[in-house]
Amino acid sequence: MKRPPLRAVPEGVRLLVERFPEWKLDALLVSALPNIRYLTGFTGSNALLAITPGGVLLFTDPRYDIQAREQAGCPVKVVRGPLTAAANAWIARQRLKRVGFEKSRLLYSDYAALKEALPLGASLIAVAGWVEQLRMVKSEEEIGRIRQSVLTNSAALAASLPRIRAGISENDVAAELEYQMRLHGAEKAAFDTIVAAGERTALPHAEPGPRLIEANQLLLIDMGASQAGYASDMTRMFVLGKIGGRLRGIFNAVRKAQLAGIDSVRAGVTAGQVDRRARQVLQSEGLGKAFVHSTGHGLGLEIHEAPRIGKKDKTALRAGMVITIEPGAYIDGLGGVRIEDTVLVTSTGCEVLTPTPKELISL
Amino acid sequence: MKRPPLRAVPEGVRLLVERFPEWKLDALLVSALPNIRYLTGFTGSNALLAITPGGVLLFTDPRYDIQAREQAGCPVKVVRGPLTAAANAWIARQRLKRVGFEKSRLLYSDYAALKEALPLGASLIAVAGWVEQLRMVKSEEEIGRIRQSVLTNSAALAASLPRIRAGISENDVAAELEYQMRLHGAEKAAFDTIVAAGERTALPHAEPGPRLIEANQLLLIDMGASQAGYASDMTRMFVLGKIGGRLRGIFNAVRKAQLAGIDSVRAGVTAGQVDRRARQVLQSEGLGKAFVHSTGHGLGLEIHEAPRIGKKDKTALRAGMVITIEPGAYIDGLGGVRIEDTVLVTSTGCEVLTPTPKELISL
Repeated sequence: MKRPPLRAVPEGVRLLVERFPEWKLDALLVSALPNIRYLTGFTGSNALLAITPGGVLLFTDPRYDIQAREQAGCPVKVVRGPLTAAANAWIARQRLKRVGFEKSRLLYSDYAALKEALPLGASLIAVAGWVEQLRMVKSEEEIGRIRQSVLTNSAALAASLPRIRAGISENDVAAELEYQMRLHGAEKAAFDTIVAAGERTALPHAEPGPRLIEANQLLLIDMGASQAGYASDMTRMFVLGKIGGRLRGIFNAVRKAQLAGIDSVRAGVTAGQVDRRARQVLQSEGLGKAFVHSTGHGLGLEIHEAPRIGKKDKTALRAGMVITIEPGAYIDGLGGVRIEDTVLVTSTGCEVLTPTPKELISL
Repeated sequence: MKRPPLRAVPEGVRLLVERFPEWKLDALLVSALPNIRYLTGFTGSNALLAITPGGVLLFTDPRYDIQAREQAGCPVKVVRGPLTAAANAWIARQRLKRVGFEKSRLLYSDYAALKEALPLGASLIAVAGWVEQLRMVKSEEEIGRIRQSVLTNSAALAASLPRIRAGISENDVAAELEYQMRLHGAEKAAFDTIVAAGERTALPHAEPGPRLIEANQLLLIDMGASQAGYASDMTRMFVLGKIGGRLRGIFNAVRKAQLAGIDSVRAGVTAGQVDRRARQVLQSEGLGKAFVHSTGHGLGLEIHEAPRIGKKDKTALRAGMVITIEPGAYIDGLGGVRIEDTVLVTSTGCEVLTPTPKELISL
């Protein structure tokens, strides 16, 4: 399907090539599919992108012949067999010496295949995060797509709420949410929707199952849409009836932590500082050990992108980054709470893109 | 969520350990998540499984603390930070020398992280496909799960057909199909559902879009469910109104090729022989060049598993393997046809698991 190429594209390749001299690179092989999509617009499941200062070449297989020519704003080479073999032939033809590869995005076996058949005098240079760093700061068009994905996600939740009641299974709630996402314009869910009730809310990554939701339980829904390629991510808490004071206390603490995290976001602050702000609130509420993950993550073409809003990430936030803020607290045998928004970093603070109210929603 | 462990599990580990002496291995690190699920039952998204002749140890992170202890039939070590660092500490503690790793299932960066911090005297040995080879032949319980997944998939198609008509978008058809899968018991779609109409049927891996389906067009639907972890896969062709004689001819040729492929399946025949049987039919119909992919693939915990039913695959089929048979022919600017069933290999032939009729279905 034809998608309008993103404006960022030629700019992205230019910025990558600018880094070549520092690393003495003659070429860069991009193997991560989301990176290839970012740079070329191609959305197929098998591709390798070769970048030289002289231009780019996209390798794919015959299944994507038509699609690649439709989508990619660059020359396409359709090959049978391993793309690494085609890349090696290309390295030989172009007489390239130092060829960069994405070390966190290439399987060891593909690395070994490239290395084994490398022309004499050529070598592979491991680089990491080059395209991911470009992708951290979104273009206006990308921000527009994320905004739309966030709105679709919230609309899907709103449309599903009337169907969520005691006696319906976690599975059926997840099915309804993902169906509504698509009816509202998403191409799919950005990740497996999490629906967890009662004690199972204590599992940060609970898989929905055939269990029926009961009254007087906490209910956690973590959902995201993928629309025009871009992800959204939101977690909300619900209650069907009443819950005990301890769970309400945890909810209030997590909400306080989430608001503190959001309050700390602005260009110039580091990801680690944002994490600390949220974490300190939960620590002061005696829930430090119950917060077992980081405060958030970047998102865009992938649901998890740089930066990671975690203790050790020193990335300085920049205007145009889109991140989640999602502290949580989980007590085995009792339950857990997480509240999550998708947030756009601005020069003076941030804009919370998620329009859904974040109170404990009574159903 | 608790799932009954598969009977294959301890047997699987035993068979892996049996291969250690030939490779002089002291341990094997399993990094592919479906392989870890196969061996332990654990379904989380971050794990590393260490196998020695003395036992197995599952590494995961705090998000999966409760879930791993619920699901995995083995000791679990919950660690913060990279699992490769924990694995290296374990290699040192156990004084292991030769440690195998899954070369096609480990990122280069993880390999490099392991290698860099390896204790003195220890080395990493690349192995490939060990667990995948075990997984090729399914246990009775696995076959039962695949049967159920296939039935769910066909039931979802049947339930969706009344909604498919001219004027509805490809997207909405895909949404309906996946919703019905879940209502019929699937946890999700096994892959992004393909819905393509008209000329777009010529793209073997078309992505559904907002395009409205028109009358007098071919319609291709390629869908699969994932249920209790196991995949199904089916492609069917539809027509809303009438299509031209050339497309009907292509349909008949592909159907003939698909039946020939199925007819050739039995234990002892190689995957390549099955591919050749289907391919020869399309070649004799003048459609050899229009058949741009292989005839099929194994499926199970993953949608694409060994063996590949392709020209060069010499794997001898064995009773208990489950594969797809899905020849296709694609003509740019006109359209394409693919027909696909999920098939169980038996000692005397095969059982076509897919119950949906494979005629050109008029809507």
